[in-house]
Amino acid sequence: MGTDNRPPDDLARLSVNQETVRQLALPELAESLVALGVPGVGLWREPVREYGVEAAAKLVRDAGLTVTSLCRGGFFTASDRGERAAAIADNRAAVDEAAILGTGTLVLVSGGLPAGERDLAAARERVADAVAELAPYASERGVRLAIEPLHPMYASDRCVVSTLAQALDIAERFPADQVGVVVDTYHLWWDDRAGLDIARAGAGGRLACFQVADWITPLPEGVLLGRGQLGDGCVDLRGFRERVDAAGFAGPVEVEIFNPALWARDGRGVLDETIARYRVHVL
Amino acid sequence: MGTDNRPPDDLARLSVNQETVRQLALPELAESLVALGVPGVGLWREPVREYGVEAAAKLVRDAGLTVTSLCRGGFFTASDRGERAAAIADNRAAVDEAAILGTGTLVLVSGGLPAGERDLAAARERVADAVAELAPYASERGVRLAIEPLHPMYASDRCVVSTLAQALDIAERFPADQVGVVVDTYHLWWDDRAGLDIARAGAGGRLACFQVADWITPLPEGVLLGRGQLGDGCVDLRGFRERVDAAGFAGPVEVEIFNPALWARDGRGVLDETIARYRVHVL
Repeated sequence: MGTDNRPPDDLARLSVNQETVRQLALPELAESLVALGVPGVGLWREPVREYGVEAAAKLVRDAGLTVTSLCRGGFFTASDRGERAAAIADNRAAVDEAAILGTGTLVLVSGGLPAGERDLAAARERVADAVAELAPYASERGVRLAIEPLHPMYASDRCVVSTLAQALDIAERFPADQVGVVVDTYHLWWDDRAGLDIARAGAGGRLACFQVADWITPLPEGVLLGRGQLGDGCVDLRGFRERVDAAGFAGPVEVEIFNPALWARDGRGVLDETIARYRVHVL
Repeated sequence: MGTDNRPPDDLARLSVNQETVRQLALPELAESLVALGVPGVGLWREPVREYGVEAAAKLVRDAGLTVTSLCRGGFFTASDRGERAAAIADNRAAVDEAAILGTGTLVLVSGGLPAGERDLAAARERVADAVAELAPYASERGVRLAIEPLHPMYASDRCVVSTLAQALDIAERFPADQVGVVVDTYHLWWDDRAGLDIARAGAGGRLACFQVADWITPLPEGVLLGRGQLGDGCVDLRGFRERVDAAGFAGPVEVEIFNPALWARDGRGVLDETIARYRVHVL
């Protein structure tokens, strides 16, 4: 039976990334999640800094929410020495913010190809170099770096790490407690090797973060804001959840959807719907 | 020195797909290609049928052009029996058209996931089933089926075959002279395994068609018409050409770009530019 404040058991692993309902300010978001029995929240650097990192940390802590990840660091691919140093400095700040927020997971989006460059492999090596520089700093602060492969449609302008295999190829150069990977269904659903790579990630203790969103078409211009609500698309979300579970992952399931149609709606209604869809399509 | 009618030696492998300059009607296209010394042309079913298949065949034959491919058959993923039979019938017609046009290569785009389905592997098996049904028919008519992997951003709505490895996994179930694969830089440039798979394709005699286009961003809505002119993007086009050459491919290099900005320009000017870019970025 439990007490009134106890979250429903079937939502025990659920987390909602704040960008899914960006129309909700942080206090409303925290209040809504608690009221709905959602124990986890994924935070995004920009709105958190706008609210104040310390204030945000206190807010979510007082609400009893678990911060499942901070999005995002990364953008490590610049060839220019000055840009590269700036990226490292910014990522140190991101680590500090993660530590203040009480999350052990900083999501890294690698960055794309610098203008005029055509060498993806070289750009990926620069990502590995930056991770090498950052991982000890993060580890000392209790934060694990989580390398996120993004869908290959972002390979040129956002993330040169396109597959879970590539993310693992970098992560495995470092201790597992320092560097892990992100499994996001939106980015990996098309890849027939993803199942094998999830098993590889699990066996190596690298599964740092599991995010879910659905794939819908047509893709919008720029292809950034076209993610689908759970169940609206063609991703076998439950199959993914079962695969990460089978690989030994017992952590949060974080819903991260960027979609202006969801942002235009009442945020609380979107949360209600998300929970209902989670029960039907993910659990 | 050669005669006036002899194409420049360095363009000996060049082919231009008619959709690259769709503003040019077939007679203008043929005349322009011959005048510019381009020996090959890739044709597209719809404009060819509009012009008349026999008439188009005579036109390109009289011009002395080689038809390097016909685009496209495929769309084999329907679960519905009636839709599936219609697809096979349409593909038999495409084979017949290819034979009339004198090309030995029919490009196949597999088709996406039917509405409401989430099983990519099952859809790929239906592609293999259709290829099994079609390959002998095509072979009897001197036409080889060429399975084209499309970029993973098309996996749901257009092509469940997303990597060269997947295309080869299907093609290799059939004799090499009946079923090959297409290497298109636009679709494969992001894949760090593409080099290995090109070698695999070459070793097995599966390289049926090599197409080039560049990758530019931002992608347009629907992501269909955003291909870049050679050299405008981040693809190592020469590297790809060298890899297919090293794998034993000595066939045509077909430029296939879908881009409304090119279509809005003078078609002959686009051809001039394409040839210049081919010399700088592909040869």
